[in-house]
Amino acid sequence: MSPGNPTPGKKTGLPPGSLVFVGTPSNNPIEISIIQYNEQECKEFVLHEVSEIKNYVCSTHNTWININGVYDVSIVEEIGNTFQLDPLSLEDIVNTQTRPKLDEYEDYIFCVLKDLYVEDERIMKEQLSFVLKDRLLLTFQEEKGDVFDNVRNRIRTASTKIRARGTDYLMYALIDAIVDNYFVITDWFDKELDLLEEELYKITTKTQLANIQQTHATFNAMRRAVIPAREVIFSFYKSENSLIKKKTHLFIRDLMDHIIHITESIEQAREKSNGLMNIYISGTNQNMNNIMKTLTIVSTIFMALSLIAGIYGMNFKNMPELEWQYGYFAVLGLMGLVSLGLLLFFHKKKWL
Amino acid sequence: MSPGNPTPGKKTGLPPGSLVFVGTPSNNPIEISIIQYNEQECKEFVLHEVSEIKNYVCSTHNTWININGVYDVSIVEEIGNTFQLDPLSLEDIVNTQTRPKLDEYEDYIFCVLKDLYVEDERIMKEQLSFVLKDRLLLTFQEEKGDVFDNVRNRIRTASTKIRARGTDYLMYALIDAIVDNYFVITDWFDKELDLLEEELYKITTKTQLANIQQTHATFNAMRRAVIPAREVIFSFYKSENSLIKKKTHLFIRDLMDHIIHITESIEQAREKSNGLMNIYISGTNQNMNNIMKTLTIVSTIFMALSLIAGIYGMNFKNMPELEWQYGYFAVLGLMGLVSLGLLLFFHKKKWL
Amino acid sequence: MSPGNPTPGKKTGLPPGSLVFVGTPSNNPIEISIIQYNEQECKEFVLHEVSEIKNYVCSTHNTWININGVYDVSIVEEIGNTFQLDPLSLEDIVNTQTRPKLDEYEDYIFCVLKDLYVEDERIMKEQLSFVLKDRLLLTFQEEKGDVFDNVRNRIRTASTKIRARGTDYLMYALIDAIVDNYFVITDWFDKELDLLEEELYKITTKTQLANIQQTHATFNAMRRAVIPAREVIFSFYKSENSLIKKKTHLFIRDLMDHIIHITESIEQAREKSNGLMNIYISGTNQNMNNIMKTLTIVSTIFMALSLIAGIYGMNFKNMPELEWQYGYFAVLGLMGLVSLGLLLFFHKKKWL
Amino acid sequence: MSPGNPTPGKKTGLPPGSLVFVGTPSNNPIEISIIQYNEQECKEFVLHEVSEIKNYVCSTHNTWININGVYDVSIVEEIGNTFQLDPLSLEDIVNTQTRPKLDEYEDYIFCVLKDLYVEDERIMKEQLSFVLKDRLLLTFQEEKGDVFDNVRNRIRTASTKIRARGTDYLMYALIDAIVDNYFVITDWFDKELDLLEEELYKITTKTQLANIQQTHATFNAMRRAVIPAREVIFSFYKSENSLIKKKTHLFIRDLMDHIIHITESIEQAREKSNGLMNIYISGTNQNMNNIMKTLTIVSTIFMALSLIAGIYGMNFKNMPELEWQYGYFAVLGLMGLVSLGLLLFFHKKKWL
Amino acid sequence: MSPGNPTPGKKTGLPPGSLVFVGTPSNNPIEISIIQYNEQECKEFVLHEVSEIKNYVCSTHNTWININGVYDVSIVEEIGNTFQLDPLSLEDIVNTQTRPKLDEYEDYIFCVLKDLYVEDERIMKEQLSFVLKDRLLLTFQEEKGDVFDNVRNRIRTASTKIRARGTDYLMYALIDAIVDNYFVITDWFDKELDLLEEELYKITTKTQLANIQQTHATFNAMRRAVIPAREVIFSFYKSENSLIKKKTHLFIRDLMDHIIHITESIEQAREKSNGLMNIYISGTNQNMNNIMKTLTIVSTIFMALSLIAGIYGMNFKNMPELEWQYGYFAVLGLMGLVSLGLLLFFHKKKWL
Repeated sequence: MSPGNPTPGKKTGLPPGSLVFVGTPSNNPIEISIIQYNEQECKEFVLHEVSEIKNYVCSTHNTWININGVYDVSIVEEIGNTFQLDPLSLEDIVNTQTRPKLDEYEDYIFCVLKDLYVEDERIMKEQLSFVLKDRLLLTFQEEKGDVFDNVRNRIRTASTKIRARGTDYLMYALIDAIVDNYFVITDWFDKELDLLEEELYKITTKTQLANIQQTHATFNAMRRAVIPAREVIFSFYKSENSLIKKKTHLFIRDLMDHIIHITESIEQAREKSNGLMNIYISGTNQNMNNIMKTLTIVSTIFMALSLIAGIYGMNFKNMPELEWQYGYFAVLGLMGLVSLGLLLFFHKKKWL
Repeated sequence: MSPGNPTPGKKTGLPPGSLVFVGTPSNNPIEISIIQYNEQECKEFVLHEVSEIKNYVCSTHNTWININGVYDVSIVEEIGNTFQLDPLSLEDIVNTQTRPKLDEYEDYIFCVLKDLYVEDERIMKEQLSFVLKDRLLLTFQEEKGDVFDNVRNRIRTASTKIRARGTDYLMYALIDAIVDNYFVITDWFDKELDLLEEELYKITTKTQLANIQQTHATFNAMRRAVIPAREVIFSFYKSENSLIKKKTHLFIRDLMDHIIHITESIEQAREKSNGLMNIYISGTNQNMNNIMKTLTIVSTIFMALSLIAGIYGMNFKNMPELEWQYGYFAVLGLMGLVSLGLLLFFHKKKWL
Repeated sequence: MSPGNPTPGKKTGLPPGSLVFVGTPSNNPIEISIIQYNEQECKEFVLHEVSEIKNYVCSTHNTWININGVYDVSIVEEIGNTFQLDPLSLEDIVNTQTRPKLDEYEDYIFCVLKDLYVEDERIMKEQLSFVLKDRLLLTFQEEKGDVFDNVRNRIRTASTKIRARGTDYLMYALIDAIVDNYFVITDWFDKELDLLEEELYKITTKTQLANIQQTHATFNAMRRAVIPAREVIFSFYKSENSLIKKKTHLFIRDLMDHIIHITESIEQAREKSNGLMNIYISGTNQNMNNIMKTLTIVSTIFMALSLIAGIYGMNFKNMPELEWQYGYFAVLGLMGLVSLGLLLFFHKKKWL
Repeated sequence: MSPGNPTPGKKTGLPPGSLVFVGTPSNNPIEISIIQYNEQECKEFVLHEVSEIKNYVCSTHNTWININGVYDVSIVEEIGNTFQLDPLSLEDIVNTQTRPKLDEYEDYIFCVLKDLYVEDERIMKEQLSFVLKDRLLLTFQEEKGDVFDNVRNRIRTASTKIRARGTDYLMYALIDAIVDNYFVITDWFDKELDLLEEELYKITTKTQLANIQQTHATFNAMRRAVIPAREVIFSFYKSENSLIKKKTHLFIRDLMDHIIHITESIEQAREKSNGLMNIYISGTNQNMNNIMKTLTIVSTIFMALSLIAGIYGMNFKNMPELEWQYGYFAVLGLMGLVSLGLLLFFHKKKWL
Repeated sequence: MSPGNPTPGKKTGLPPGSLVFVGTPSNNPIEISIIQYNEQECKEFVLHEVSEIKNYVCSTHNTWININGVYDVSIVEEIGNTFQLDPLSLEDIVNTQTRPKLDEYEDYIFCVLKDLYVEDERIMKEQLSFVLKDRLLLTFQEEKGDVFDNVRNRIRTASTKIRARGTDYLMYALIDAIVDNYFVITDWFDKELDLLEEELYKITTKTQLANIQQTHATFNAMRRAVIPAREVIFSFYKSENSLIKKKTHLFIRDLMDHIIHITESIEQAREKSNGLMNIYISGTNQNMNNIMKTLTIVSTIFMALSLIAGIYGMNFKNMPELEWQYGYFAVLGLMGLVSLGLLLFFHKKKWL
């Protein structure tokens, strides 16, 4: 479980295939859960010893081995040895900064994807790796998550489609669950954008500016997970590997439609989020206009009144008004009238 | 009938092929209307029981079954069973957020498009799904609309081209009717843009800013329907499926020209709509200039007059003007002249 | 002859292939002129009856039939019947909003292009349609224009290249004449842009803003005609249709160079025209700066003088200057010096 | 030698292949120089009669015929007849607005490029045309230039690589010399941009704005010459024409690297030049800020002092300060202190 | 070791294949170090005479010859002669401005890349050239650097993967080390951007503007090294040259993932760096707003107080307040109250 901001994506200076965990370390014990199923039955196991794993491969059932937590490099290495996985695959599994990818090896398909979810108003990423072999699927989660729970329940239910099909369909179903989450995320992000836009129509302060920048960062984190996922699903669809049965292709085509739908939403979100800056700048301009109007109104009124006062402060010998009994009060009244007149004038000009 | 703004495009956590209606629910009964026609005759039926549908398939006539309303999932499912449609197709039919697509299955072509129309100054979308089989066309409408009425009338008319041709031509004709609507919509939008632009030359307030943003949203809703439609029509044209006769290809090529024409209009609309923000910002700048000019003019005049008053408010012993009989009135006159002179000056500088 | 702004590009609700004139109607009689030529001779005819047209098809000469005016749908229809043209082609001929295109039919090539010319400082479009058959070329003009006159004269001249070649070369020559006009238009537009830019350096008012928007519209009208023309000429070049002789290909390659040259000019014009908005905004900013400078200078001077006047308006018992014989005049002199000093100061700061 | 700004790129209304000179006319006599060389020897000739040219074609030597000046159409025509060149090639040679191109004819390769050089701080273009035949290379220069001098010297030197190879290598070497010049130009332009940027940090006046626009124009002139040159060199590389020997391909690949390097520099220059407008606008904003700060400081100080003066100008009976012996001087001192205090305050706020 | 800014990329006017050093000259002696290794053993040598080099080629070991420093053209030439390298390759080796490339020659693969590192807050580039022959790898460094040290240590260690594989794997490992450095650089740059952004939220002066421009320049230097590197690695991967063993391909695929990851980071950095200008401009706008608010507040208060003073400076005969014993002090008190009231008012309006 790593936050959505980029961190160094690789440990440098090591030979390729070196197993070094890159990510947030954890002390929780790694959990290995196994589901074995075919059309007739479905058995579940939880392992405590990684060495037992090899006893669970069988040719009559589909076996799904899920490893929660990849921070213990030695366990991942032992699993790699058991199933003859290439060190390059293992390196990608334990590096939680791996870019989503689908690599075909001689006897297995290796795939990395990112699950997205929202925590404390931030988008979080979790890396998920898949190893598809004949009748066997290994999945590696960064930490125990719940993205696969729906699929697990469908397997447990007798006579569902998933029970009747192979591990290629299982892998499809799990990726479909991840892509479903992307829909949730893009909807959430869209609503965040709408909220921010509404706010921007009201106030434009430096906080809002920072919020806009934060939005761009969130958008990029999302985009970095989803865009490569499209390529992965496209490779999955195009693959002519015999591990993927022809019947499953139809479902992967459907999945492609979904991921394209999502990438379109993301492009739309980008334009929306670019528009925010325009609203912000327009807002500050509008503020400036209002300040200047205030200044102009205040200046005009006070200057007019001061001029009147100034005139009657002149020292001419012959100034008839000065001699009037109520001259002073008349002038105060005149000042009131002038203020009122100017206020009415600016009101009419829609400046007030 | 859903408004043009995006809503969650998928229900999450369900197995693929699950039939769940996504859209605005309705209590109206679903209407099924059937037209059977060939060159000689044309018969019409309205069904009240979905189970009767299977009696209307025949090999001597072309059969067009139109289902108004897709909110009753059970009816769609029964139709799917009757015509052996893939659950994935049915899922797309009842999800009114499906992205326009054209999928070829073993014995039918499945296609989803969006009809656009304007209601209360907003662009509304209605999803339309097509299933093309040999001599049979199924169409699903989100709600009872009238986009197909023209085609219906042409079928009713004897010896029209449409009567002499197959259901592939019928499907072409219906899509052509939808694309015709796109022309109406882009023209409407173009006029809206022109109106907004004209307005922006006159006033620039926060309302206008919100209108510009609203326009962008409308544009995106439109674009989301039309751009994938281009791909759909292109796939329709490229398809080598035997369900589409060679003669019909010429017409689909014509249809492609139309959809390209529309997408070009949309791109042009995008540039126009992007230009609006520039006009808005220029407008607020211009406003600021005017405010500042007002302030400068007012300040200059009042300060000049106040200075004069101030001078004659000085307490020097020897100030000859103060002794003059009409000094006071002369100064008032001087003030009048100065004001006039400054006004003329600013008028000449084109500030007034 | 329709102005360059877009109007609804299609009449909706009609079956495809319906002949409905879309454009500016006219009452002028349609003119049909025929030129028959081969290397030896060149004959010209003007028809008054569309039915006579069929008598002029011959296999020993190249025949060019030019129809001026397409607003009389019945005439176009009769010509279509005479030469067995597809209704879809006829529909495009009478719709003056058709997008430039090149369609190959079984026994003819159909092509639509736009001629551009300037009238009253606006770009006008005229639609031109071509039907190329063996030894026969039909051309349809929206109204009687003169774009083809040069080619006509070359045919009349004995022993020109055009006399020795087929109708495919004639079609090339006519398209070349249209593309030559595009050069004229892009040069005209370039000069308009330069004029506007020069103006913008001097004044920036709302009129200029409207002019910039008008320029964008003109640009789009031009682009809508030229960009598809490039595709048309490219299809013309790529075409392996036997109607286009190999020798003509070399010329069409040359034509392609020209149209690419033009599209590059258009892209350059786009950047230039986008730059105008920047100049405009910079101009208003500069104006603002000048206004603010004026305000600052005026305020500074008047406030300084008023302060002096204020000081000598104080009522202290002991203010020696007030008693001086020429105190008043000294202060007036001081005010003059202060004004001069400030003016010099602002002049030195380059504010004046 | 034509300046870098675009002028009408074609004379309109003439049949294709018409030889009309487009460019800056000149009265200098056209110069024809010939170099004949092989590994053993190198002979040079200068012709005064174009008719003699045919005597210099030989099969034992490589012959390079360079024509300086293309404004005399009749001479170009005679050369065209002598070497059987297509009229379309000749038309391109005498039109100095031809877009860079590489056309393959049956027995020769025709190529047009632009040489760029700087004169009076402006980029100038000179058109260069190449006709490559077996053992023969014709080059046409707009006017006598010196871009080929280096290559000429290499030929004169015995036992250089160029002496041992054919005219295809010679053509490569000449194009390489042109591309070398592009490096000089892009470096020059880059320095101009840096100078302008530095200037913009200091002053932002309308002159600078015009300079930025001028820079865009220069950039476009440069780009119009170089981008098509990349296509030309790419066609040169891809060409499977037997006139280009396999050994020369390696060198053309090297040339391609260079032209790609240059186009990258140009793209970078574009971004830099786009950034200038941002600096300019930021500069005017900064100016405005400074003006407003000045106004605020001046206003604050004068208003404060005027208020003091105003207070002691009040006519209350009982104002003890007025009676003080040195009240007046105390107030003048107070005014000084207030001014100083405010100046210190604004200095601390970094406004001064 | 050349700084990241572009300098003339080519010496002009020389024949292709001329060996001229382009870069920063140096007087350090060139160092040649040799590592010979196979699975059994690993021997290291340091040469002082370039002529000895030929003694170290052997068919039982892999030989890696590393040349530190390329400023001595004669040494590079001698090495070129010893190993029969094409003059074009040698020209690229000694020109430190060569664009990253991968060229396949008949019996060797030639590759140029840039190593990036940070020195004094600037990105520095060092050019590295590779010549891959069977069992032999030549590497040329611009100056002695340490980018290859990790690989050197891995070779020294017995039974590492690198010892068991050929020079193609060695070349892969070295390029991998370079790409690892790119990760370090992009992370560094990302942090620089974040720092600058944070700063921009606080102050916006001309220094910041220059910093933003400096950032663009740094970005471009980085991009110019990395983007072509992607092409190089892609060519490396696609190459079907027998020098690259099949087993190594899997590793190069992994390398491609890394370089794509980096180019994505760079694109993200570009958007971030473009966003900075927006923040800067918003900042100056905000500053202006604050200045104007200050001016408005100051003006309002002083004008109000001056008006009061002005009123009691009028010379009316009958002004009762003037006669009050404590009138003067009452007015001073009034002034204090008005100031306080206005400050409270502006505080409530959030202007203070």
